[in-house]
Amino acid sequence: MIITLTTDFGQRDSFVGAMKGVVLGIAPEAQIVDIAHAIPPGDIRAAAFALMTAAPFFPAETIHLVVIDPGVGSARKGIGIRCAQATLLGPDNGVLSWAVKDERSLEIRSLENPQIRLPRMSATFHGRDLFAPAAAWLARGRPFAEIGPEVNDFHRLDWASATPASGGWQTEIVHVDVYGNAITALSGEQAADKNYVMLPGERRVAIAPFYSAVPRGSPLAVVGSSGLLEIAINGGDAAKAFSLRPGTQVVVA
Amino acid sequence: MIITLTTDFGQRDSFVGAMKGVVLGIAPEAQIVDIAHAIPPGDIRAAAFALMTAAPFFPAETIHLVVIDPGVGSARKGIGIRCAQATLLGPDNGVLSWAVKDERSLEIRSLENPQIRLPRMSATFHGRDLFAPAAAWLARGRPFAEIGPEVNDFHRLDWASATPASGGWQTEIVHVDVYGNAITALSGEQAADKNYVMLPGERRVAIAPFYSAVPRGSPLAVVGSSGLLEIAINGGDAAKAFSLRPGTQVVVA
Amino acid sequence: MIITLTTDFGQRDSFVGAMKGVVLGIAPEAQIVDIAHAIPPGDIRAAAFALMTAAPFFPAETIHLVVIDPGVGSARKGIGIRCAQATLLGPDNGVLSWAVKDERSLEIRSLENPQIRLPRMSATFHGRDLFAPAAAWLARGRPFAEIGPEVNDFHRLDWASATPASGGWQTEIVHVDVYGNAITALSGEQAADKNYVMLPGERRVAIAPFYSAVPRGSPLAVVGSSGLLEIAINGGDAAKAFSLRPGTQVVVA
Repeated sequence: MIITLTTDFGQRDSFVGAMKGVVLGIAPEAQIVDIAHAIPPGDIRAAAFALMTAAPFFPAETIHLVVIDPGVGSARKGIGIRCAQATLLGPDNGVLSWAVKDERSLEIRSLENPQIRLPRMSATFHGRDLFAPAAAWLARGRPFAEIGPEVNDFHRLDWASATPASGGWQTEIVHVDVYGNAITALSGEQAADKNYVMLPGERRVAIAPFYSAVPRGSPLAVVGSSGLLEIAINGGDAAKAFSLRPGTQVVVA
Repeated sequence: MIITLTTDFGQRDSFVGAMKGVVLGIAPEAQIVDIAHAIPPGDIRAAAFALMTAAPFFPAETIHLVVIDPGVGSARKGIGIRCAQATLLGPDNGVLSWAVKDERSLEIRSLENPQIRLPRMSATFHGRDLFAPAAAWLARGRPFAEIGPEVNDFHRLDWASATPASGGWQTEIVHVDVYGNAITALSGEQAADKNYVMLPGERRVAIAPFYSAVPRGSPLAVVGSSGLLEIAINGGDAAKAFSLRPGTQVVVA
Repeated sequence: MIITLTTDFGQRDSFVGAMKGVVLGIAPEAQIVDIAHAIPPGDIRAAAFALMTAAPFFPAETIHLVVIDPGVGSARKGIGIRCAQATLLGPDNGVLSWAVKDERSLEIRSLENPQIRLPRMSATFHGRDLFAPAAAWLARGRPFAEIGPEVNDFHRLDWASATPASGGWQTEIVHVDVYGNAITALSGEQAADKNYVMLPGERRVAIAPFYSAVPRGSPLAVVGSSGLLEIAINGGDAAKAFSLRPGTQVVVA
């Protein structure tokens, strides 16, 4: 059984290592896969985007564990969501929400069973004490129902919708990746008959089929690997060059 | 058999990859787990802290390999330490010392057997040429005694003790984590009836039960995941804000 | 079967995670090993050096997948190279070339078989859509010949040769590692009877047997773990201190 990990713990401390130790102590056969550990500290939307874009490529039955947890220790719940393709575990702060694509037959539970956590819970590291053991017990075959009582819903992050604008779409940047590509909420299908993106300050960037279709150092818009239109510079950092951030409004026409 | 890796090799070069290749060439069934690879270059205390905080969460019999080795090539020994819960391998520069919790029935050996190293030893990368093969041979089942002759002791790093001060404890920062939380040497038990930490410059920070018990951007002290009292800012970087470093003296009262 | 990954994808995004999901969906038994994911963006030579130095330490039959792919989506081919010790997969931009040590019985194929890629190919992420599935199918046992038609050659990066100079060798820096060690193209054998390296600006650095053979903070040249002579500072960053970069000319005498 695969357990994936997505955190903001970095590689300087032992946080990720301790979680893996807990998992392997309970479920020695679990296959642990790192999705990302350099999510900016506390950046729930960045982690939600990472999970949303990676999860569809994993086998069914994978357990995805996400620990971006600025509210750790407070009353925020830990939750598990069972959906068609995967089981998701993490704090109920929205970080799991974008990975839920199909609302049918969702099972949502609050992670409250004291038998599937470490005997001694810290106030600051539920990734190790609560979430890792729960994931490991599920990987070992304990039924999902045992993690805790069913709840009605989970916290959902807004997804920037693309709305029709004069001759095109008004949309916004939802994520900036490590290269500085700025990804919009507009799908490749919606952008199919469009020609350019208008950035703030009336800067026009033409849509192109791939990065190196424009000269090195030149900007372009391209349908990226997440199926969404993104603004890029061939060999450069578009987000920095054009001051694009999550929330920046753009028009596609 | 699990082999963990803790290094300052980062992810830009192939050092970690080469070590894994060596391990898997000798012990194809070994399960390699990364604890941390972004330990600041040569920072023996940071690595010792990482190992100390991760090792207790791994199954008994795990082999922990730590390569923070500024003295590589010199006369410093490579050592193995077998203790109640684990086998530790690394340079004898103190990096293993904080993970040894129980001094009974320690077995300490110098890594000198030429049969369990690579045939050609470099002068700069014993992680690959000496330590990785030793860990792999142990994982494959060679007896610990075969790594080399027994020695009497190993190099130990000082652990900052907490000493009684007027109405409380004098202690110091032992580690700063990636979020900027500054961890003291005072245990949660010692801090149980205390109210605040006095930082340099007479700055008082109140003890709170968890990060988000104070408003975002406010400082607090909290018993962290290592069981030690730490100074934090909810959503911020306390070490930067208050110039806290390993060795900074604080009073808890 | 081991599949190694070398990329410039970092740990902030889900790129590496998505590739691993694809691999494990096709080849659940594959053992995925990270070589390096923090190669500087688009730095083909740095990735070629990482692969060249790690690959010899992996078991025969390992599949090495390298995705440094600034030309993704363009006409650049994806290739597979089967050589004596390993199978290499990646874009045909030279990134694989330094790892090919033995030119006999090479089998070079263009990755064109549509049956071993994802049904829907993005224009920006062939690591996930083309290379990961190919590696996984090979790990599952599909014959190498099925990846696509044989081709005559692959793109090769220049390797800086060391040429005889007055009383020694003229050579150049080929790689700077994470510590700031500047690695030359001169082998330890070639440097065996030499005494120093002359850096730009007539700065002489003496050859020493290991880092800590000189005082902390002092420069030295040493035969490093790749078997090549490198310029270092004990406990410091030689590349920064002496402005050394790939391509910088030095003389060894």
